[in-house]
Amino acid sequence: MLTHLPLCSIPNPKKLLVIGGGDGGILREASRHPSLEQIDICELDQMTVDVYATYFPDIAIGYKDPQVKLHVGDGVAFLKSVPQGSYDVVILDAFHVIGSLGYDANELVEEGLLETVAKALRPGGVLCAGAESFWNQEFDLESNISMCRKILKGSVNYAWSSVPFYQSGVIGYMLCSTEGPPVDFLHPVNPLDEKENSGISNQPLKFYNSE
Amino acid sequence: MLTHLPLCSIPNPKKLLVIGGGDGGILREASRHPSLEQIDICELDQMTVDVYATYFPDIAIGYKDPQVKLHVGDGVAFLKSVPQGSYDVVILDAFHVIGSLGYDANELVEEGLLETVAKALRPGGVLCAGAESFWNQEFDLESNISMCRKILKGSVNYAWSSVPFYQSGVIGYMLCSTEGPPVDFLHPVNPLDEKENSGISNQPLKFYNSE
Repeated sequence: MLTHLPLCSIPNPKKLLVIGGGDGGILREASRHPSLEQIDICELDQMTVDVYATYFPDIAIGYKDPQVKLHVGDGVAFLKSVPQGSYDVVILDAFHVIGSLGYDANELVEEGLLETVAKALRPGGVLCAGAESFWNQEFDLESNISMCRKILKGSVNYAWSSVPFYQSGVIGYMLCSTEGPPVDFLHPVNPLDEKENSGISNQPLKFYNSE
Repeated sequence: MLTHLPLCSIPNPKKLLVIGGGDGGILREASRHPSLEQIDICELDQMTVDVYATYFPDIAIGYKDPQVKLHVGDGVAFLKSVPQGSYDVVILDAFHVIGSLGYDANELVEEGLLETVAKALRPGGVLCAGAESFWNQEFDLESNISMCRKILKGSVNYAWSSVPFYQSGVIGYMLCSTEGPPVDFLHPVNPLDEKENSGISNQPLKFYNSE
């Protein structure tokens, strides 16, 4: 979901940056998108990469996509180092999820993480980040959406999916575009073909469909 | 969901039977449907009714709807006692959910429960029953849908919602109509008005909407 929701929402995404996600699962899913020409991943922890390569080859297979370039280091520093407007899509699979307890909207704003992402994205580019479960009564969805609208200056939608592993059985996603043509996250303009888009794993999609 | 999914799926439901659901929550939600003229409930356990009346008045308030008639006794026996075609909608909130482990399709068929429900419903009437979570790998959704199609002889759809309380965070619903005009469960023909349909509790809807 973290991968397909943003990549399906805009036509012909070419440049993707993944922050975190060192296991390779996001890369594996990104490889289903034929328009991509460059996939950068910045993972803090080399051991995550190594452990998945050894013990979870079905997930780490994402690194076999020749477009993938791994940068080991701090995600925020990496984001700050890239030229403005470098990416069509940024996926955050590091840091706390948006709206998580003890790490509220103000902290994210203060740390400037979202501003940094906004600069790394081209106009009309898309950010997808994990967000709190809607069942968390201390998660103020409205204020988090407002914050994202204020910083990213484009379209913002909250999505969720059922994942029993997470507390409450639900994990959320925040989808945001930067200033530019509005993005209709509810109606993906760049759908995946279930049969053709098997990607580097050569496996059919298990959970995502365009509905 | 167990209440609104079936009641919103057909025009002007008038007669509702609830099997189980002694707490009163389904009755409370049913009271939002102005077309209903008769609400029968058959609950095995008088103590359930009493305990909710004493300790959970916000749920037990459903019994205050003057259309409600409580029958304390065995649900299967009650279903067998009513004339054929008595109800527009039957809600099962007793027994095991459809497809649950150790209680598979064959047992339900053998016990004749669904046949008994089918007889109690009018042609084109609707059954809603709990069903297993789709995360349960031993739940064979296809065979359960086939079974329901075979017995009820109308439209059948599986629905689900996120409920953290349940194992895997998901509970399912089986929606079935009897032989008659097909029912499009995905597009409710009898939507609830969020403002007008506050029912006996005079509270707005919290979870259900027609989408």
